[in-house]
Amino acid sequence: MQTPNPSPRASLDALFNPRAIAVYGASSDPTKIGGRPLDFLKGSGYDGPLYPINPKSAMIQGLPAFATVSAVPGPVDMAIVAVPAPGVLAALEDCAAKGVGGAVVLSSGFAEVGGQGAQWQQQITALARRTGMRVVGPNCMGIINVRRRILGTFTPSAAGFGLVPGRISLVSQSGAFGGYCLSLIRQRGLGLNLWITTGNQCDVDFADCVNHYAQDDGTDVIMGYVEAATDKDRLVAALALARARGKRIVLMKVGSSEAGAQATASHTASLAGSDQVYDGLFKQYGVYRARTIDELFDVAYACSVARQPPKGNRIGLLTVSGGVGALMADVATECGLDVAPMPEDAQRRLKEILPFAGPRNPVDMTAQLVNDLTLFEKNFQLMLEEGGYDVVVAFLSSVGQVAELSSNLLEQLKKVLQRFPDRTVIMSMLASAEVRKLYEAAGVMLFDEPTRAVRAASALVHLAAEAERAKTLSAPPALPAGALAPPAHAINEIEAKRVLASAGIPVVRELLAASEDEAVRCAAETGYPLVLKIASADIAHKSEIGGVLLGLSDEAQVREGFRTLMQRAHQHAPQARLDGVVVARMAQKGVETILGVHRDPVFGPVVMFGLGGVFVEAFKDVAFRIAPFGVAEARAMINEVKGRILLTGLRGQPPADEDALADAVSRLSVYAARHADAIESIDINPFVVLPRGEGAMALDALIVPRLTPA
Amino acid sequence: MQTPNPSPRASLDALFNPRAIAVYGASSDPTKIGGRPLDFLKGSGYDGPLYPINPKSAMIQGLPAFATVSAVPGPVDMAIVAVPAPGVLAALEDCAAKGVGGAVVLSSGFAEVGGQGAQWQQQITALARRTGMRVVGPNCMGIINVRRRILGTFTPSAAGFGLVPGRISLVSQSGAFGGYCLSLIRQRGLGLNLWITTGNQCDVDFADCVNHYAQDDGTDVIMGYVEAATDKDRLVAALALARARGKRIVLMKVGSSEAGAQATASHTASLAGSDQVYDGLFKQYGVYRARTIDELFDVAYACSVARQPPKGNRIGLLTVSGGVGALMADVATECGLDVAPMPEDAQRRLKEILPFAGPRNPVDMTAQLVNDLTLFEKNFQLMLEEGGYDVVVAFLSSVGQVAELSSNLLEQLKKVLQRFPDRTVIMSMLASAEVRKLYEAAGVMLFDEPTRAVRAASALVHLAAEAERAKTLSAPPALPAGALAPPAHAINEIEAKRVLASAGIPVVRELLAASEDEAVRCAAETGYPLVLKIASADIAHKSEIGGVLLGLSDEAQVREGFRTLMQRAHQHAPQARLDGVVVARMAQKGVETILGVHRDPVFGPVVMFGLGGVFVEAFKDVAFRIAPFGVAEARAMINEVKGRILLTGLRGQPPADEDALADAVSRLSVYAARHADAIESIDINPFVVLPRGEGAMALDALIVPRLTPA
Repeated sequence: MQTPNPSPRASLDALFNPRAIAVYGASSDPTKIGGRPLDFLKGSGYDGPLYPINPKSAMIQGLPAFATVSAVPGPVDMAIVAVPAPGVLAALEDCAAKGVGGAVVLSSGFAEVGGQGAQWQQQITALARRTGMRVVGPNCMGIINVRRRILGTFTPSAAGFGLVPGRISLVSQSGAFGGYCLSLIRQRGLGLNLWITTGNQCDVDFADCVNHYAQDDGTDVIMGYVEAATDKDRLVAALALARARGKRIVLMKVGSSEAGAQATASHTASLAGSDQVYDGLFKQYGVYRARTIDELFDVAYACSVARQPPKGNRIGLLTVSGGVGALMADVATECGLDVAPMPEDAQRRLKEILPFAGPRNPVDMTAQLVNDLTLFEKNFQLMLEEGGYDVVVAFLSSVGQVAELSSNLLEQLKKVLQRFPDRTVIMSMLASAEVRKLYEAAGVMLFDEPTRAVRAASALVHLAAEAERAKTLSAPPALPAGALAPPAHAINEIEAKRVLASAGIPVVRELLAASEDEAVRCAAETGYPLVLKIASADIAHKSEIGGVLLGLSDEAQVREGFRTLMQRAHQHAPQARLDGVVVARMAQKGVETILGVHRDPVFGPVVMFGLGGVFVEAFKDVAFRIAPFGVAEARAMINEVKGRILLTGLRGQPPADEDALADAVSRLSVYAARHADAIESIDINPFVVLPRGEGAMALDALIVPRLTPA
Repeated sequence: MQTPNPSPRASLDALFNPRAIAVYGASSDPTKIGGRPLDFLKGSGYDGPLYPINPKSAMIQGLPAFATVSAVPGPVDMAIVAVPAPGVLAALEDCAAKGVGGAVVLSSGFAEVGGQGAQWQQQITALARRTGMRVVGPNCMGIINVRRRILGTFTPSAAGFGLVPGRISLVSQSGAFGGYCLSLIRQRGLGLNLWITTGNQCDVDFADCVNHYAQDDGTDVIMGYVEAATDKDRLVAALALARARGKRIVLMKVGSSEAGAQATASHTASLAGSDQVYDGLFKQYGVYRARTIDELFDVAYACSVARQPPKGNRIGLLTVSGGVGALMADVATECGLDVAPMPEDAQRRLKEILPFAGPRNPVDMTAQLVNDLTLFEKNFQLMLEEGGYDVVVAFLSSVGQVAELSSNLLEQLKKVLQRFPDRTVIMSMLASAEVRKLYEAAGVMLFDEPTRAVRAASALVHLAAEAERAKTLSAPPALPAGALAPPAHAINEIEAKRVLASAGIPVVRELLAASEDEAVRCAAETGYPLVLKIASADIAHKSEIGGVLLGLSDEAQVREGFRTLMQRAHQHAPQARLDGVVVARMAQKGVETILGVHRDPVFGPVVMFGLGGVFVEAFKDVAFRIAPFGVAEARAMINEVKGRILLTGLRGQPPADEDALADAVSRLSVYAARHADAIESIDINPFVVLPRGEGAMALDALIVPRLTPA
């Protein structure tokens, strides 16, 4: 660690696991930004040497101080920097010279204020890249390692330590958010391992931290807050690594609304990709996206306590209140869990145990439970054995507030848990902190509120299914050998479809006719009824000028149609170069979908899928994924949109050829990724999916080439 | 109160405000069901006499006991009955003879077990009706009046009292749910007034309790749990009265899923109306339907603390964390609140106060707030004055955990609140119980979690808007004088439309043709292109057998069409009586909607509205209301469905005639209500809404008459 590692992205070990820590700008006043980390570290029980760095004092907070870090006798792995902005660069130069492996810059006054501050920040980045010393911040809240008792932060939420070691590690781009989370972690008694806020991310960014946590044996659950990624490849690699290592990732990403997006833009000035693209990215890499802070904590908590990932989505509900049982069943159903009934025979046996019980599922033990706790063990055992539930949520009202009741209950529970080590058990009851800890130690999580218990169950099932799904993902298909390059200029729809066809995407059979007579000849070849469309690279939205005629059924209509289209083109788009008309046989009956590609400023080519008609426009019912991806991912994308039900064969229609659709979506992603720099957007609308076994085809397509940046 | 009131539905005053209480089946063991209420009442500080009733002991729990209530010397207004089921009726007879005004039957073993128990319950009901004594339960958890310190319950959640007097009253059909809520009320320190669980509802039901709370001056907020109503008229009257008296109602109703509905059915055996119908009822009467227990409590809490209902939906967001600010903006937008930006000039002034602030909305005070609390007052004042927000939600992280900080903050807050008495202020911060109480006393509510704070703001805005809306509701329109009665037997679609037209619902102009030649003559009258449909009272779903031909454009097609339809009818429905074919001009371009009526077992005729196409089938995107209702309610119903966007003029289409649509929906409700007993269902599909000013019309209709019950 004494020798700087010149590799541009060294490990974060020096930051999280330092042998010794220096505090630059250490203050004797423990309420100041430069005094607080020292005060925290002194009191927390950190086992390494602490070196206050301050040229003005010989002693700071009772410790011998040094004028610069170079004056420190022993090795220093990590430096906390709290000097005012103008002095930060010099302090970091000293650190790098000393061989410090990582520095945490708490000071503000950099990119977030612009001007000179932004320049200083660029210089810090350059220093980090040049020396390999990792720099966190500036303008951040710092870093925590609970096991090592390192509080490298000035957030008041860390005062008095009060943290319990555990399997969750947190990374927050926002310092205030990170501090608030720390308070919640203490309030809830969550077990924490590492904590970091990345601030302006001059060097260490969100992706670095996910990457570090992915490789950290002490971390099972990665909890995070992200505002804007800057480096797609490293973020994707980190998420993929975390998934491969079996970590559970629960993230919050804000800015789904315009007001929210503007708020994040104003306070970090970083270029955020579209919110829906993040959503697609998270789905792609099995990240659980929390929509509230309660949810962020509930899911991370559940992941950290659960003994095993649930094997399936069968949920058993045990309750002392029929009403709460029904409520839990409602929410479980809404979450897509299977509230499967108990087998008939088991229901009979439950009735024998408790004649007034509701034996189906939810299993209602009624208030009798309180009179006879053995009921719980018997019911519970029967549910796991006969019901075969992957997860059981038991609602026991306020039983957990009575210490004796709840410890008896736990003893019974433990017996059953031993017999069924692969099942997940969640209790919903009001309980004291002590009771809570005992249950958690046995792998049983507790929620006050029953719907939150069910949602936590759903999250565990979802994350487990995602982990399984990851193992089955296919590689993106190879691009066909003869695939054409994207055009360098605007092309008409026939040419666009030819390009797509070369990439393996099925397109409608159609002909280009430059004259009326030629249109009639083409019509004879394609057959009636047919469609006639203006062919022009300059007219992107043909239907808006009446440039599409449907259902023409004889030669006379074709002749008249040709003349009509030419006239409309001249009238509405007099400057447009006309190639003639497209003649195509009317598509067989199928389901209209829309396939698209657009360039995201952060994530590059992104593929969109949605159903045709009003679904995309009115309901924003679309799915996104980062290109490229395989057929299995395309299927997941298709399953994600609500309108997918139209593909399953509604109203007596035959089911649509989803295989062909998924294949096309995946091939589109491969083509888009291969030519990321040459394509601005692709719009295939409609892409018609025919009945199962009959394929699918693009009826219309638009490729907008990307102008090479000057 | 000594004389029984023979009116079948006497007030519940005797129950909630008794001068003296008798406990039938009083036990010396304070853990028994008959011992616990006495133990609770002795310890709670109830100021009236307590009379244990037990023939076997002279003294119970230190009080003189009586063999029967008739032996009690003074008046008794309320009796708690805890004797085993076989003795309950006799106890109640004694009570009625004594002139007891109300009895609470805690004992179980009645309708919920069936057989003899069900018969006993019927006898209790008959007794209550005959004597006017109000009976709560059986199989219930009892009753509480916090101000009178009456704990007429055996729920362990009441042990030690621990309740704070307040403006919330609770009614729960489920005892276990009610007990759990009581624990939560204590845990959260909510101010409670009255509490009741209705159990088997042999006499006093959910509607009675809502009615009582509606008239209770000590109640502002009615919180409830309902499983199944039995008497529509009394429930509707109670909800309407509560709304008229300015009460806020927050209810939970379970059973939206099949598993949930089955669970409630199994444990109460009462016939529940469809969940979607309840949803419509709640919307109709301004009831807030909570979907989780957290939400039930959050909204009731917010209503009980708020100083004034918000005047509008402009929300100002103040934050110390840009990330949380963005999160709150996302959620507020999702809830339909207006996150309007601060005026430009005010933004400039905010920047002067704090140069690094985000001044737009959310207003980001950054962590600077902690260093300079006056920032809060200044920012806050500016937001109310210049931003004109109806509600402000301020996120202050964990400031409330520091007593001095938070009391300083409150002093500043109070100054501003005085100047703006009509604004609602919600704080989101972690806070101690003491801090919480101080803020609440000032009318400021506190939430740990910022998204829950925003959702509470949204609920307050929604409830205030509903209260305003109630003032503008129009009466249902009068039924036209010449309206036809519903048919007594199956009729064809032409006849069905004639009936609907007579009720003021516009229908398409069409003719009935019994022969091929007549069809051609009709066609000449209606004009081309036209539609031909089989006319038969016996074929309800014509399109399924190919019985509808669209777009016929000349005489030859009409002749061929007639023959085709006759042939299909003979082939697919050989038994059907055929009236010929319906000839109708093709509808002008409009938006297809579906209007329906069905009989709900509890609520009678219920009107359904949805968009045509896949919206109803695939997305269940429909709205329900109990008939009859006026045009304003019909409008609310239309606004409720997501597909409504199709009526607003998508893709350059003209906006649809929503006035005509709302009028028709309202008229349909009037007709359905007038003939509630004669109609099983009405299905108008499609009901086409033409461009604004051009009206709307039913293209097809089906009326299913109700067979008179034998």
